[in-house]
Amino acid sequence: MTSATTTADRAEPEHRYVLTLGCPDRTGIVARISGFLAEIGGWITEAAYHSDAETGWFFTRQTVRAESVKMGVDEMRSRFAAEVAAEIGPETEWRLTDSGAPKSAVLLVSRESHCLVDLLGRAHRGELPATVSAVIGNHRDLEELTTRFDVPFHHVPFPAQGKAAAFDAVAEIVDGYTPDAVVLARFMQILPPQLCEAWAGRALNIHHSFLPSFVGARPYHQAFARGVKLIGATCHYVTADLDAGPIIEQDVIRVDHSDTVADMVRQGRDIETMVLSRGLRWHLEDRVLVHGRKTVVFS
Amino acid sequence: MTSATTTADRAEPEHRYVLTLGCPDRTGIVARISGFLAEIGGWITEAAYHSDAETGWFFTRQTVRAESVKMGVDEMRSRFAAEVAAEIGPETEWRLTDSGAPKSAVLLVSRESHCLVDLLGRAHRGELPATVSAVIGNHRDLEELTTRFDVPFHHVPFPAQGKAAAFDAVAEIVDGYTPDAVVLARFMQILPPQLCEAWAGRALNIHHSFLPSFVGARPYHQAFARGVKLIGATCHYVTADLDAGPIIEQDVIRVDHSDTVADMVRQGRDIETMVLSRGLRWHLEDRVLVHGRKTVVFS
Amino acid sequence: MTSATTTADRAEPEHRYVLTLGCPDRTGIVARISGFLAEIGGWITEAAYHSDAETGWFFTRQTVRAESVKMGVDEMRSRFAAEVAAEIGPETEWRLTDSGAPKSAVLLVSRESHCLVDLLGRAHRGELPATVSAVIGNHRDLEELTTRFDVPFHHVPFPAQGKAAAFDAVAEIVDGYTPDAVVLARFMQILPPQLCEAWAGRALNIHHSFLPSFVGARPYHQAFARGVKLIGATCHYVTADLDAGPIIEQDVIRVDHSDTVADMVRQGRDIETMVLSRGLRWHLEDRVLVHGRKTVVFS
Amino acid sequence: MTSATTTADRAEPEHRYVLTLGCPDRTGIVARISGFLAEIGGWITEAAYHSDAETGWFFTRQTVRAESVKMGVDEMRSRFAAEVAAEIGPETEWRLTDSGAPKSAVLLVSRESHCLVDLLGRAHRGELPATVSAVIGNHRDLEELTTRFDVPFHHVPFPAQGKAAAFDAVAEIVDGYTPDAVVLARFMQILPPQLCEAWAGRALNIHHSFLPSFVGARPYHQAFARGVKLIGATCHYVTADLDAGPIIEQDVIRVDHSDTVADMVRQGRDIETMVLSRGLRWHLEDRVLVHGRKTVVFS
Repeated sequence: MTSATTTADRAEPEHRYVLTLGCPDRTGIVARISGFLAEIGGWITEAAYHSDAETGWFFTRQTVRAESVKMGVDEMRSRFAAEVAAEIGPETEWRLTDSGAPKSAVLLVSRESHCLVDLLGRAHRGELPATVSAVIGNHRDLEELTTRFDVPFHHVPFPAQGKAAAFDAVAEIVDGYTPDAVVLARFMQILPPQLCEAWAGRALNIHHSFLPSFVGARPYHQAFARGVKLIGATCHYVTADLDAGPIIEQDVIRVDHSDTVADMVRQGRDIETMVLSRGLRWHLEDRVLVHGRKTVVFS
Repeated sequence: MTSATTTADRAEPEHRYVLTLGCPDRTGIVARISGFLAEIGGWITEAAYHSDAETGWFFTRQTVRAESVKMGVDEMRSRFAAEVAAEIGPETEWRLTDSGAPKSAVLLVSRESHCLVDLLGRAHRGELPATVSAVIGNHRDLEELTTRFDVPFHHVPFPAQGKAAAFDAVAEIVDGYTPDAVVLARFMQILPPQLCEAWAGRALNIHHSFLPSFVGARPYHQAFARGVKLIGATCHYVTADLDAGPIIEQDVIRVDHSDTVADMVRQGRDIETMVLSRGLRWHLEDRVLVHGRKTVVFS
Repeated sequence: MTSATTTADRAEPEHRYVLTLGCPDRTGIVARISGFLAEIGGWITEAAYHSDAETGWFFTRQTVRAESVKMGVDEMRSRFAAEVAAEIGPETEWRLTDSGAPKSAVLLVSRESHCLVDLLGRAHRGELPATVSAVIGNHRDLEELTTRFDVPFHHVPFPAQGKAAAFDAVAEIVDGYTPDAVVLARFMQILPPQLCEAWAGRALNIHHSFLPSFVGARPYHQAFARGVKLIGATCHYVTADLDAGPIIEQDVIRVDHSDTVADMVRQGRDIETMVLSRGLRWHLEDRVLVHGRKTVVFS
Repeated sequence: MTSATTTADRAEPEHRYVLTLGCPDRTGIVARISGFLAEIGGWITEAAYHSDAETGWFFTRQTVRAESVKMGVDEMRSRFAAEVAAEIGPETEWRLTDSGAPKSAVLLVSRESHCLVDLLGRAHRGELPATVSAVIGNHRDLEELTTRFDVPFHHVPFPAQGKAAAFDAVAEIVDGYTPDAVVLARFMQILPPQLCEAWAGRALNIHHSFLPSFVGARPYHQAFARGVKLIGATCHYVTADLDAGPIIEQDVIRVDHSDTVADMVRQGRDIETMVLSRGLRWHLEDRVLVHGRKTVVFS
């Protein structure tokens, strides 16, 4: 409780270019990249590296102040492609994004509101580095909540015998927004393989257990039955292999013998919202690099 | 991601009577209380005891199924007073509440929305054991958000030279709702002593530091300057002694050298919402017994 | 860094009788037990209850100051059996132990020293409520360390073709000490069913993962391959079902992409020692009640 | 519990050169350093950067495989000084260390054994990247424990009227070992300013509270009196300003109303050992860069 205002705490995020890159590791890559950045006057504000001994792969993420570079992001991309990436080798995977370009997320929901309210609240206070473009629900339960936040809600029913068609409808809506993230915010429906493929690296799920424990349905019931002393949640990229995609973030909370399944469900919501919001934030800030079944998270 | 619905997870809270009691410790108190409960047929669903060696005080909280007791809460209160409390002694402090009686909370806010949205979201999904009767803000920033959740918003400006009058206005509004909890949800104004007194044991504050570290203004700036490796939040009862009231709940998260004040402010919000919502829940469920400067929390 | 001595911090544990009890739940059990304790003058210092809605079972643990009860533990046992347990019903399981009676633990080890040193250090400073009577190793690696702490070390080799005989030898040594706890402190050998049976409720294992994730061999390798963001450890009672016994305690620590398997192994040691020492302490203080596949831990 | 051996988990630490550097931030520093490393063939295994917006200072830590660099550490130092550091500017502070050169730590203790046993155990299993050269105690309580680990113990009494002379004796012993770390492992004596100065950046203390809460004597008593819900420990560099040196690491554990001071002391030991051992490890691995009152920890 203080009498000071906190407006000074709301730093306007700086305009930055964000470079992420992965390639087979060898001597001189850091020098090549940082030499290029120095050459174009890039003032580095964040730089992270990871050299993976197991796979022999190198990863980096660097941010430079946009104003320090006397060119637009397109020109910088062309020059980086020609002067650096080409030289590092054909296996190189890289992206250069502009923090000033607005990003967008579409949320898929069912009946549980906690992740939805949490993300809408973050977007409302300008904390999420993206706009929530739309919410799609297989039930109407969350329609009113969504529209109160001035976000469009699309209802796509999922009849037991018409899931394929329903997913086609969802896909059409989602793709209409060309979102940077498709967030399964307790969606409770399993994405078909073609959508896992189409949205690879962009579709995030929150699973309500500490994976790989309690894959599949009713994880809190499974946790209760096993008598674990911690319950958790996992944010991961969606792949065709159920609950087995690359993990972005996980966390747990303590439970004990006095907690019923309903208590676990309630407490679990808090971990789910925290884990999903952190994972989504890192994804949108280009902090997550996927390699095989695993992620490198430069948080 | 599962295809199972979770409606079964939404347990309807059972109708219960909740007894809390504190008194000087001596042999036989538990027997006296449990003897009474057994006599009236009370089926105990939760029972917690604490014997405080330092102060020689005894504390208990017990819940019984309302349907197991063949009487209303008023009759049970009269009988407990006559048959148990009187016998235990005059220093005994006790309450018997009915979980079926609706509880109410009034929130005092300023410009920061995170605790407000979090609590409104919990109330909306039926997770908070109380209705949010009203929100009072010293600015209009959060009016629209509040009214979207169909909760009345009262704007009471706090001019530098008119704080006493403003607090009178706040008090009149609050007292009109006779709330079970007055929640300073990042209110940023210091309650005057007469309101601390009037709302003793009902006014909860969330302080954005791990008290007793960083009392007062701008705690994240203080934390940044000191270079701590964890930041925290504290939910406490408001007393006339600034940030020194009995602590209900605290928690922390890890930060490091790369976190700016703005990063700490952002991450701190998540801890503030968690700590405040847990503290408020425990308060509303009569889980918090205050004794001197400290609390017993039967969580 | 302070100039004050801390000898005042070393409280001599009070002489207490510890009652634990489990039985089918019904009205009046608490009253019956506390009535008995009051009758014999028992000053209750700790009391915990749990009513399990799922199984309909009731659990309690209570401690009374030995000096407040004007009888020895044997007499108190006889009276409790006749006056309380008999009345509560034949399914009642209960124990009454004397905190003044010395307890004993035998540790089974292999080559990893961290849990051994941790437990010997705790025993040395009087923190563990038991004596470490002996250490049995299937290798001689930890013999010197053990004997430096004046604890006898028994070497029992486990040749690939002679494990049954080796376990017979281990059992004979263990049973010679009639220990209150048989601790598999990273023993790396699977107990045969007859020993699981013989030591049921007394044999504790530390598994180096957050069960039920990563059952079996090389859990840190499994965790590394899956790319989890937290690693953990689990202390559980040993049963014939590998790594599936009732869980006593679990905890986790954060890892990231930069952690190799060796880093996980190193960091995991700290969690293993913490989790095992907490679990063992609770077991020795009669805080753990087993019911089916789960535990009630009155910590 | 597994039957697999874990010898494969014990990775032999690779021979590396570790560069740490701090200087005023400007464009091109990363390029200059990485250019140099590439030029001499340096295979970078770890690289971390931090650009501090508040102080305008730049920090980096990089490790290269010693075998990839075709020169000794002395030659590399000379070349780096001439070709890089000189160019970056006169305010540059840097070190280049050889992970193959053995490091040494001296521990100062009093009567509490937990940090001592923990560190001796880590050194014994080869986990600590240093030898414990000696232990100095102001009491003889820990002499036997120390010598059992084959580490020399020096007893220096601290009479109330002769502390200055005692510190002279301690300093002489310590300096005889030229240690890389002087660890106050619950030493309970306040270092005089001239030793803080002499050992600046090498003397580490573990304080048994979450600083800046509960500075000074008897922090667990202070924590108990305040009724905090978490207790902690802080590892920091020792400076002349009591308990106010740059913080390296902190952590906390949950306590509640049932915990006495003695319980807090006991649980606090576990946090103290964890925090001190992590802080010391990072210090010895040159992961901690001090700047003003704060640290950059490349953990």
